[in-house]
Amino acid sequence: MINTSDSLEILVQEFSKLPSIGRKTALRISMYLLKASNEEVEYFSKALINAKEKIKFCVICCNITEDDVCKICLSEKRLKKQICVVEEPQDVIAIEKTNEFKGVYHVLHGRISPLDGIGPNEIRISELIDRLKDDEKPVEEIILALNPDVEGETTILYLNKLIKPLGIRITRIARGIPIGSELEFADQVTLAKALEGRVSV
Amino acid sequence: MINTSDSLEILVQEFSKLPSIGRKTALRISMYLLKASNEEVEYFSKALINAKEKIKFCVICCNITEDDVCKICLSEKRLKKQICVVEEPQDVIAIEKTNEFKGVYHVLHGRISPLDGIGPNEIRISELIDRLKDDEKPVEEIILALNPDVEGETTILYLNKLIKPLGIRITRIARGIPIGSELEFADQVTLAKALEGRVSV
Repeated sequence: MINTSDSLEILVQEFSKLPSIGRKTALRISMYLLKASNEEVEYFSKALINAKEKIKFCVICCNITEDDVCKICLSEKRLKKQICVVEEPQDVIAIEKTNEFKGVYHVLHGRISPLDGIGPNEIRISELIDRLKDDEKPVEEIILALNPDVEGETTILYLNKLIKPLGIRITRIARGIPIGSELEFADQVTLAKALEGRVSV
Repeated sequence: MINTSDSLEILVQEFSKLPSIGRKTALRISMYLLKASNEEVEYFSKALINAKEKIKFCVICCNITEDDVCKICLSEKRLKKQICVVEEPQDVIAIEKTNEFKGVYHVLHGRISPLDGIGPNEIRISELIDRLKDDEKPVEEIILALNPDVEGETTILYLNKLIKPLGIRITRIARGIPIGSELEFADQVTLAKALEGRVSV
């Protein structure tokens, strides 16, 4: 008999299921919500159901949206001939924050990871290839902005093999030393890639 | 235009309000929930509303409960003459986990903290004094299990002044070196309190 309320126990268990929340944080959050006003908790609960109901995937780029086509794909200001391929919708938000990219996106919703049972058919690769084959909207460049780890590299190799025959330029974002970090603390592989990818000053 | 969905933005903002969750974690959790099944999200949302609706405070000890009187106060196995005073319901859970305490609790729902505008009337002190003055259920010992910081000490001093005239034994939980830690890393105050509170072997 640790908890004196079953409803609280259920709520704590639900919060514990979320990523990066352990049991202690779940309890802390639950207690916080019990002290919040009824209106606040109702609003929170509605936000949850609302987001789940309204959000779907853009029919063009597979990013999350509330309409059939997302705001980025609809925008006339974005260059449709440049597609940046990312793993998750979060990555779109991260790149948008830079204000540097004027093209459009394609969200794979994962990466090829045979160990986790995720093959090319489990992620949105066929949708990307269909976009590239559309002659009405020719694509000039594919920028691969995948995470620089084993699964990301595997996905890049696979995509490269599929896209190269289409005659489209394929690039990948630079791997190197992060801004503000110190050379002496960089790992060997990052440093090697930074040397390899050196550019003229 | 960073987020492509307003519902998502609202959900992320709601999660960001919770303690120990920053914007990045909020986004990560929101994305996780968008990928979860409709049933799971509905269950989560219901758990939230349900806990908020059902949970109230025990009329005796002010701990959270779904009935008028909590399970601990109702239990015949618990010693009613020993009351452990804690700051928050979480503290009851922490002490219950030890399986060492057989008495009952009193939850203050805070501690005296003049800097935050919390005086003795803002927390459940009068309810505690009413319990102690009840002649039908005489209390023999009050164990103060408050957090050992400035606000906790202030609250202990205040309670001591109120309870002493009632002729009830007042104790506080030991302050000392935590099990498994090393002496050399203990702070001076903790070490001093550990020396002061030494017991015969």
